[in-house]
Amino acid sequence: MTSSTTYDAESLRNSLTQRAKELEKTLDKQFPRMKGGEANLIEAMRYAVLGGGKRLRGYLVTEVASLFNVPLAQSIYVGASVEMLHAYSLIHDDLPAMDDDDLRRGKPSTHIKYGEAIAILAGDALQTKAFELLTMEEIHESATIRIQLVKSLAEASGSTGMVGGQVIDMEGENRHLTLPEVLNLHAMKTGRLICYSAEAGAILGKATPDLKNHIISYGRDLGTAFQIADDVLDATASAEELGKTAGKDDAAGKSTFVSLLGIEDARKEADRLVAKAIRHLEPFGAAADNLRALAEYVVYRKN
Amino acid sequence: MTSSTTYDAESLRNSLTQRAKELEKTLDKQFPRMKGGEANLIEAMRYAVLGGGKRLRGYLVTEVASLFNVPLAQSIYVGASVEMLHAYSLIHDDLPAMDDDDLRRGKPSTHIKYGEAIAILAGDALQTKAFELLTMEEIHESATIRIQLVKSLAEASGSTGMVGGQVIDMEGENRHLTLPEVLNLHAMKTGRLICYSAEAGAILGKATPDLKNHIISYGRDLGTAFQIADDVLDATASAEELGKTAGKDDAAGKSTFVSLLGIEDARKEADRLVAKAIRHLEPFGAAADNLRALAEYVVYRKN
Repeated sequence: MTSSTTYDAESLRNSLTQRAKELEKTLDKQFPRMKGGEANLIEAMRYAVLGGGKRLRGYLVTEVASLFNVPLAQSIYVGASVEMLHAYSLIHDDLPAMDDDDLRRGKPSTHIKYGEAIAILAGDALQTKAFELLTMEEIHESATIRIQLVKSLAEASGSTGMVGGQVIDMEGENRHLTLPEVLNLHAMKTGRLICYSAEAGAILGKATPDLKNHIISYGRDLGTAFQIADDVLDATASAEELGKTAGKDDAAGKSTFVSLLGIEDARKEADRLVAKAIRHLEPFGAAADNLRALAEYVVYRKN
Repeated sequence: MTSSTTYDAESLRNSLTQRAKELEKTLDKQFPRMKGGEANLIEAMRYAVLGGGKRLRGYLVTEVASLFNVPLAQSIYVGASVEMLHAYSLIHDDLPAMDDDDLRRGKPSTHIKYGEAIAILAGDALQTKAFELLTMEEIHESATIRIQLVKSLAEASGSTGMVGGQVIDMEGENRHLTLPEVLNLHAMKTGRLICYSAEAGAILGKATPDLKNHIISYGRDLGTAFQIADDVLDATASAEELGKTAGKDDAAGKSTFVSLLGIEDARKEADRLVAKAIRHLEPFGAAADNLRALAEYVVYRKN
């Protein structure tokens, strides 16, 4: 990965920060604090979903939606929904029976803070809430649009998407995977949800099939570039920089883009995918510059 | 609970058996066996959701739908969806960090058979699939109906429903709960999903608000009666009869209808609720006789 960027990183940074605040506000409103026996569950859900993360997925939804002139007042709920889905996957990923990770976003993982039982249930309830949010009329008056979002989110996150990828990832530990196998695993495990995030913006915007395909292709290349950058970071950055445990892949005996290609070639492949992702945005002109800068950002980030 | 029934138990038994077969067939088709890294996940999902259970929830959906002349070809998917949701909750309930139960429906629990990591993920993916199924056009041409089902299922099963109830249940262990607290806990933990099952049939049938309220009231009383009967069974039946561990509530120091009311008064309360549930079905005439027999069945069953 080269360190120079073509698109305005400063403008993207401002846009990301502003959008993260909006997402945070929307997420916060979905979990009013309460008394009663389930207060602890709500606190754990808040802990996992609020106050952290780059909000890459929520940003993608809302930024793509804006290309189609969908107001943020509508798309923000879809962005918040995918952030809930993502937060649920992180809680369950970190559990002792899974990756057994005590640290997330620089803080104790949810199960360390609230115990395993509450962590499992908070993840479960966050998944439910992600789907519930998509039923809101505020998102779109057309129920057809909303049901499409539910369907796409389910396909991206279930056994044929994210969760299926997590299983392939687990079962691939201590076994050599080929490059196509690693590509497929990550396309499922992280790629599908990133791609859904972009696609969701296009669904909201009632994009033509052609433009929707451009967005999906952008999302797909962005997702793979993101994962390669993740592998490079895992191999090169410290836990302090990452806000989570570093060197995990190597310790777990996982085949990664880095173990298969080496760091230099992995970086080059990420560069190639960024350029390809950016080319898919051609039909959208300057309105898509933040999304172009985002493609550069996902590979040049430090955490 | 008296042992005589007013409605035709034989007719209900045949109807339940036939419907369970239809549900099984529909569920089976949703999980085609596969090769590849996620094969184990699909097997675990199949293990948890196929070949067992009374299919009470799926039966409720389809039987209520039939009151409104909704073909089984449509309602069966909604029935299969709630059975997936229920199966996910059982997998996660049985985990070591939760109830730590090795036995379910007379077989090893999913985490005993497939390991904890796969069990957590199989539960996660079953929840996702439950929502995905509700997006199918085969269910209803109207996306508005389908989105209503998604919304109702989410409300019944998330932090304000089933999962919230599980947390209240856990936090109530080794602490004395009052009768209203136990009623609320069970209304959330099991009642909401049973009530949703009845409501879903009414949603599919585009019931008038008045008839829908009758169905919801039936579902609510049925759910409470079901739980009281469960407490009585837990206190009086053997593990062999139950197909799961018996005497769990007492061992966990839980406040139950039995610990609060005693076995005799708990039985009487169940009887009262059955009669009340049946009265809510008055507007539906003889077409609802199986649902009336079902209300009797849930309290007279042996497992």
